[in-house]
Amino acid sequence: MYTQDTICAIATAQGGAIGIIRISGSDAIGATSRIFIPLSPGNNTPLSERNAYTLTFGRIVDENREVVDEVLVSLFKAPHSYTGEDSVEISCHGSSYILQRVMQLLIRQGCRAAGPGEFTQRAFLNGKIDLSQAEAVADLIASSSAATHRMAMNQMRGGFSRELSSLRDKLLHLTSLMELELDFSDHEELEFADRSELSALTEEIEQVIHRLTQSFSVGNALKNGIPVAIVGETNAGKSTLLNTLLNEDKAIVSDIHGTTRDVIEDTVNLQGITFRFIDTAGIRDTLDTIESMGIARSFQKMEQANIILWVVDSTQIQTQMEALSSRIVPLCQDKRLIILLNKADQMPDKDLAHLPLPAMTLPPQTEILPISAKEKTGITRLQSLLAEAAALPEINTGDVVVTNLRHYEALSRALDDIHRVQDGLHTNLPNDLVSQDLRECLFHLAEITGGEITTDEVLGNIFKNFCIGK
Amino acid sequence: MYTQDTICAIATAQGGAIGIIRISGSDAIGATSRIFIPLSPGNNTPLSERNAYTLTFGRIVDENREVVDEVLVSLFKAPHSYTGEDSVEISCHGSSYILQRVMQLLIRQGCRAAGPGEFTQRAFLNGKIDLSQAEAVADLIASSSAATHRMAMNQMRGGFSRELSSLRDKLLHLTSLMELELDFSDHEELEFADRSELSALTEEIEQVIHRLTQSFSVGNALKNGIPVAIVGETNAGKSTLLNTLLNEDKAIVSDIHGTTRDVIEDTVNLQGITFRFIDTAGIRDTLDTIESMGIARSFQKMEQANIILWVVDSTQIQTQMEALSSRIVPLCQDKRLIILLNKADQMPDKDLAHLPLPAMTLPPQTEILPISAKEKTGITRLQSLLAEAAALPEINTGDVVVTNLRHYEALSRALDDIHRVQDGLHTNLPNDLVSQDLRECLFHLAEITGGEITTDEVLGNIFKNFCIGK
Repeated sequence: MYTQDTICAIATAQGGAIGIIRISGSDAIGATSRIFIPLSPGNNTPLSERNAYTLTFGRIVDENREVVDEVLVSLFKAPHSYTGEDSVEISCHGSSYILQRVMQLLIRQGCRAAGPGEFTQRAFLNGKIDLSQAEAVADLIASSSAATHRMAMNQMRGGFSRELSSLRDKLLHLTSLMELELDFSDHEELEFADRSELSALTEEIEQVIHRLTQSFSVGNALKNGIPVAIVGETNAGKSTLLNTLLNEDKAIVSDIHGTTRDVIEDTVNLQGITFRFIDTAGIRDTLDTIESMGIARSFQKMEQANIILWVVDSTQIQTQMEALSSRIVPLCQDKRLIILLNKADQMPDKDLAHLPLPAMTLPPQTEILPISAKEKTGITRLQSLLAEAAALPEINTGDVVVTNLRHYEALSRALDDIHRVQDGLHTNLPNDLVSQDLRECLFHLAEITGGEITTDEVLGNIFKNFCIGK
Repeated sequence: MYTQDTICAIATAQGGAIGIIRISGSDAIGATSRIFIPLSPGNNTPLSERNAYTLTFGRIVDENREVVDEVLVSLFKAPHSYTGEDSVEISCHGSSYILQRVMQLLIRQGCRAAGPGEFTQRAFLNGKIDLSQAEAVADLIASSSAATHRMAMNQMRGGFSRELSSLRDKLLHLTSLMELELDFSDHEELEFADRSELSALTEEIEQVIHRLTQSFSVGNALKNGIPVAIVGETNAGKSTLLNTLLNEDKAIVSDIHGTTRDVIEDTVNLQGITFRFIDTAGIRDTLDTIESMGIARSFQKMEQANIILWVVDSTQIQTQMEALSSRIVPLCQDKRLIILLNKADQMPDKDLAHLPLPAMTLPPQTEILPISAKEKTGITRLQSLLAEAAALPEINTGDVVVTNLRHYEALSRALDDIHRVQDGLHTNLPNDLVSQDLRECLFHLAEITGGEITTDEVLGNIFKNFCIGK
C-alpha cells in the first residue's frame, strides 16, 4: 500500500443542505475519533472499534468541548475504500462556517488539506483503479448529456482498460513470436511463424488501434461539442445569430462593422447534442492590423469545424456571396455547409420566395435557409438542420470511445509504431529492429493506463484539473 | 407516526465532488432497492434486509439495466432517522446529470420531489424536534460567524425549548394554584395561596419572558448585523464611505447632489462582528418629491440604527454641522454617534489639527474623527470605533438568545398577557379572568415550539425559506 499523510477536504459544493468532509489515510479514523463523540442510542463503542461500512451519529466538538455540529460519520477500512486507505466521511449541516470549523479541527489533529483530485490519485497509486479510470472520474463529474455520461461511465468501469489489456496481450504474443525466431535464428532448419502470419497479426492490431484513434473525433465532439463555425462578412448578423442560438447576450452586438475581433465560443445543447459555436470576426478587406489577425483566425477556426454556418445579408446576397465564395467554399469540401440568408425580415415577401442566388458550385449537401436572427425566424429549422448535420453515431453501453486528448496522443504514437512494424515486416527488416518498434508500441499503450512508470509530472497534469475532494 | 408519500431531493449544492440524494418515507428503502444493485464483496443481501446505519456500495441502474452511477447507499430505519421515517441517502458522483437521472428514476418508482424544508417538517410532524428546533436548522445552515453558529446550535439542541418548557411548568403551577382557589371559592373558610404569593410567582415568570424578549435585540443584531445608519448632507461622501467599508462598488457614486435616493443596505464583517450599513439619502431641503421621500426614510432608518455615522464635509464643517445638528442630534440620544469629518485630504494639515467645530451639545460618548473616504485614511480607526461601539455581550454556550422574529412576536404577546395577569392580581380582578390571561400566555409560548395545534399556514411560512433537501 502507498502510505502517506492523512488528507481531508470538503467534498461538496457550497450552499446545499448537507456538506461532506472526506478524510483518507492511516490516521483518518484516529483523527476523526479525537473530535467526535458518538451518540448512537445504547451504543457507545468508540469509532475505532466500529465496523467498516457503518454510520455513526454523534457530535463534532472542539478543544473546549463546544459542539460544532451534530453529524453522521461513515467508516471505511483499508483496502475496502475509494482510496484503498482507511477513510471517513463526515456528513454535516451544509454551512460553510461549520465545514471550515471541522476542517480546522482535523488539520489541528494532524490532517492535511487535500489538493485537487488527491483522493482519486491515491486510489490510482494504491492500485484501486488505473489512470484512464481515474481520468474518467473527472469526466463523469463533468458529464452533462447521456452520451458523455455513458462514455465516462464505461471508461470508469474499465471498458477502455480491458480493450487496452487485450491489445497488450496480442502485442506480447506477436513480440514473443518475433523474439523466439530471433533466439533461434542460427538454426536455419527450424520453421517459425512466417512473415505473412506476423503481418496478419500486426494488421489485426493496427485495425484496433486505428479504430480507437478514429473514435476520438466522435468522442471529442460529444465531450467538447461539435464545432460549428459562424462565418460571413462584417455586419451580416453573425453575433446576433450566436446570441439567438445561445439565448443570451454573450457576444457584443452593434451596428458598427467589425465589432467581433476575438473568436467567441460557447456550447449549447440542441436536441440532445452539444454544439460548440464559434463566432468569428467578419471577413472583409481591412487595414486594421488587429482586425486582420481576427480574420486570419476566422479561417483557422473554419478548418477545425465540422459544420460551417455562412451568414449572408439577404439585402446584399449577390455582392456578399460573390465576394466570399472563392474564400469560403474551398474550405468546406469535407464539411457540412449551411448558407443562412439573414435579415429575411427586411426583404419583401415576393423577393424572399425567389432569392437571386449567384451562380456558383457549392459542396454537396449544402443547405440554403432564409432566417432572421434578430426576429428569431427560421431558427427552429436551423436547429433541425444542425442536429441532422451532426449525425454522430450513437454511443452504446460498452462502446469504447476515446474522449481524452492524452489518450488520443498516446494512441497516435502507438499507431505510428505499429505502422513502422508493418513497414519493417514488409521490407524484411531484421526481427530485432521490428521488435524494438513493438516494444515502443507497448510502452505508448501502457502510458494510457499508467501501468508503466508514471512520472510525477504526468500525474500532476492529470489531477490538477480535478475538483478538491475527489 | 405521521405517514405520507415518500419524498426525495438532491441535498447538496451543484458543483462538488460528491452529490447526495435523500429519500424519506415508508417506501424509501423499497424504491431505492428497485433501482440499486448491491456490489459489496461477498455480501449480496438485498437492501431491505440490511441493517440500519450501514453503508452499501453498488450501482444505480435504469430500466434497461444501464449503469447510471456507482454509489454508496446509507440506510436509516424508522424511528431512528432525521425525519423519524425510513430513510436512505444515496452518495453519487457530483454530476448534475447523474443526480437528475437518479431523481427521475426515484420519481418513476413513485417518490415525489420534496419541497423546501420538507424533511425537517416531517421531523417536526413526527415529533423528532419541535418548531423552534426546526427553525434552528435553517439558521444553523445560514450561520456565518461563531456567535450566530452558537445561538443556532444551542437552539437546535433544544436549549430554547428547555427554557420554554420550564416557563410552561411555572405557568401551569400558577394556573393550578389560581384554579384550585376558584374551585373551592365557595368555601370561604379555606386558606389558599395568598395574592402576594401569586404575585411573586408571576413576577418571576415576567422576568424570564422579559429577559428572553430583551435578548432579541442582541440576537437579531448578531444574526442580521448591527444596524449602522450613514447620514449627512448630500454630497458629503456617504456613498463613497459605504463603498470603502464594503470594499466594493455597491452604491452609485457621483458628484451630482442627491444621487442616493434609495436606502442601500449591506452587511460587512469587521473584527468578527457583522454590521449592517444603511446608506441614506442626503439630507437637504429639496422640492423633488421622490427625493423628499428618500430623506423621510433616512430619518426612519436612523431611528432603527444602533450606531449613527454622521458624515460631514470637512471643507464646510460650520455650515453643515449647524444646519443638521438640530435634526440629527435629538435622534441620537440612546445611540452611539460618530461624527466623521470627511474629505480631510482636501484640508491643509494645520487646519486639520484645529478643526473649527461649532458649539453644540452632543450626546455622551460621541466620537469625532477626521477621515477621507476617498483616500481611505482614518478607516482603520473608524472600524475600531465601530467594533467598540457595537459592544454586544458575548454569547456563551448554553445562553438562550432569541434570534427569530416569529419567536420574538410570540414572546411579546406572552409578555403582554403576563402584564395583564400582574394588573389583574394588583387590582384584585376575579381569579377566572386572571386565569384566562394565564392560558393566553401559555398559548403564545406554545406557538414557539409548535406544541399546540399549528396551522398549515404557519408551517408553510416557516418552511418555505428552507433549502430543498433539508
